[in-house]
Amino acid sequence: MEEIRIIDLKESILADNDADAEKLRSELDEQGTYYINVMSSPGSGKTSTILRLIEELRCRYKIGVLEADIDGDVDTRTMLDAGVASVQLHTGGMCHLDADMSRQGLKEVGSEDLDLVILENVGNLVCPAEFDTGAHMNLVILSVPEGDDKPLKYPLMFQEADVVVVNKIDAMEVFDFNPERFKSNIASCCPDTEMFMVSAATGDGMHALAEWISAKMKEKKGE
Amino acid sequence: MEEIRIIDLKESILADNDADAEKLRSELDEQGTYYINVMSSPGSGKTSTILRLIEELRCRYKIGVLEADIDGDVDTRTMLDAGVASVQLHTGGMCHLDADMSRQGLKEVGSEDLDLVILENVGNLVCPAEFDTGAHMNLVILSVPEGDDKPLKYPLMFQEADVVVVNKIDAMEVFDFNPERFKSNIASCCPDTEMFMVSAATGDGMHALAEWISAKMKEKKGE
Repeated sequence: MEEIRIIDLKESILADNDADAEKLRSELDEQGTYYINVMSSPGSGKTSTILRLIEELRCRYKIGVLEADIDGDVDTRTMLDAGVASVQLHTGGMCHLDADMSRQGLKEVGSEDLDLVILENVGNLVCPAEFDTGAHMNLVILSVPEGDDKPLKYPLMFQEADVVVVNKIDAMEVFDFNPERFKSNIASCCPDTEMFMVSAATGDGMHALAEWISAKMKEKKGE
Repeated sequence: MEEIRIIDLKESILADNDADAEKLRSELDEQGTYYINVMSSPGSGKTSTILRLIEELRCRYKIGVLEADIDGDVDTRTMLDAGVASVQLHTGGMCHLDADMSRQGLKEVGSEDLDLVILENVGNLVCPAEFDTGAHMNLVILSVPEGDDKPLKYPLMFQEADVVVVNKIDAMEVFDFNPERFKSNIASCCPDTEMFMVSAATGDGMHALAEWISAKMKEKKGE
């Protein structure tokens, strides 16, 4: 088994995270790396969604993954088993990543040789939304079992999203999730947000999401 | 419709939250009020589990509920519609409650006249675990769709739990959740934790959980 690289992140000493995040984005633009920050509650399917996206995109792009967790290494194990370049980041109890912590992970995964790096942020609908990681895109996953009312309770997370991915739509019949009510809750907090309905379990909807991401990457490069 | 009372919590100025939490527990003991802190990810079924517990316990005890959220009032509306004394607490962006914030809510819900107050903490598996709310019992809910690996990723939350409630067991067949693996993950982090398997949707398992809680309340009172 490939050895898992675990990085204990150092807490950032920079006062101005927003400025540092802008700087990191410029650095990534220069080296031609697109950086996506994936956020959600624990257990809404970040890892399996990322794996499906990589399946769709790996022929076209060189991709790496940063797995941020309070503790453990299960997701990095999953990524390495799927042949994906991946580094485990331990936040030391912190519930978010900032730009400088991103930078530590990006360096470790060798982002200068990659077209796309995907950060799986700590599972949490509150704190990660408060910190700009330097990513080009915030992708927020909300899974059907969590309920359609979440944009009302965690507005900042959905306001910070460039795209909201509704996952586990294969379980729609088991749960009281009303897609129209969800869309209206999203519309009231953040009308310009893109939305995709997917099932990372069956692969349903993943192709459209991957193509949309690829288009954003090309747009960034001016292609 | 009953008017919803919304309390904008003031940030605690006390340096020593642990000492304040002990003090709050003593105050509650003196007035004969048992206080339960319910924690989980967003959408794992805190509100519906609390409603089921109240159904089971309301003939025996006078019960009130504190609904803590970043924003919104959907859960308090649900509680009031069910005839449950309930107050909405807004944390002003903070992802946790401490003892002093508890105290503000307990006063508002009129805890001195209640046998049991249940706090629905902010949906989050990280931050709420770091702060003693002054509760007698930490009840942590993990729902089946979130996956059986969560104790490995969020160990502190499960270490702080007096009881872990596995919810949405009616959806067990739709998801890859292995109860034996979950039990072994719990055993490795916190072997003394009680565990109940329930479905707040069907009511399955709720009676046993309610009876266990009632027994703890009686134990406290020396009955």
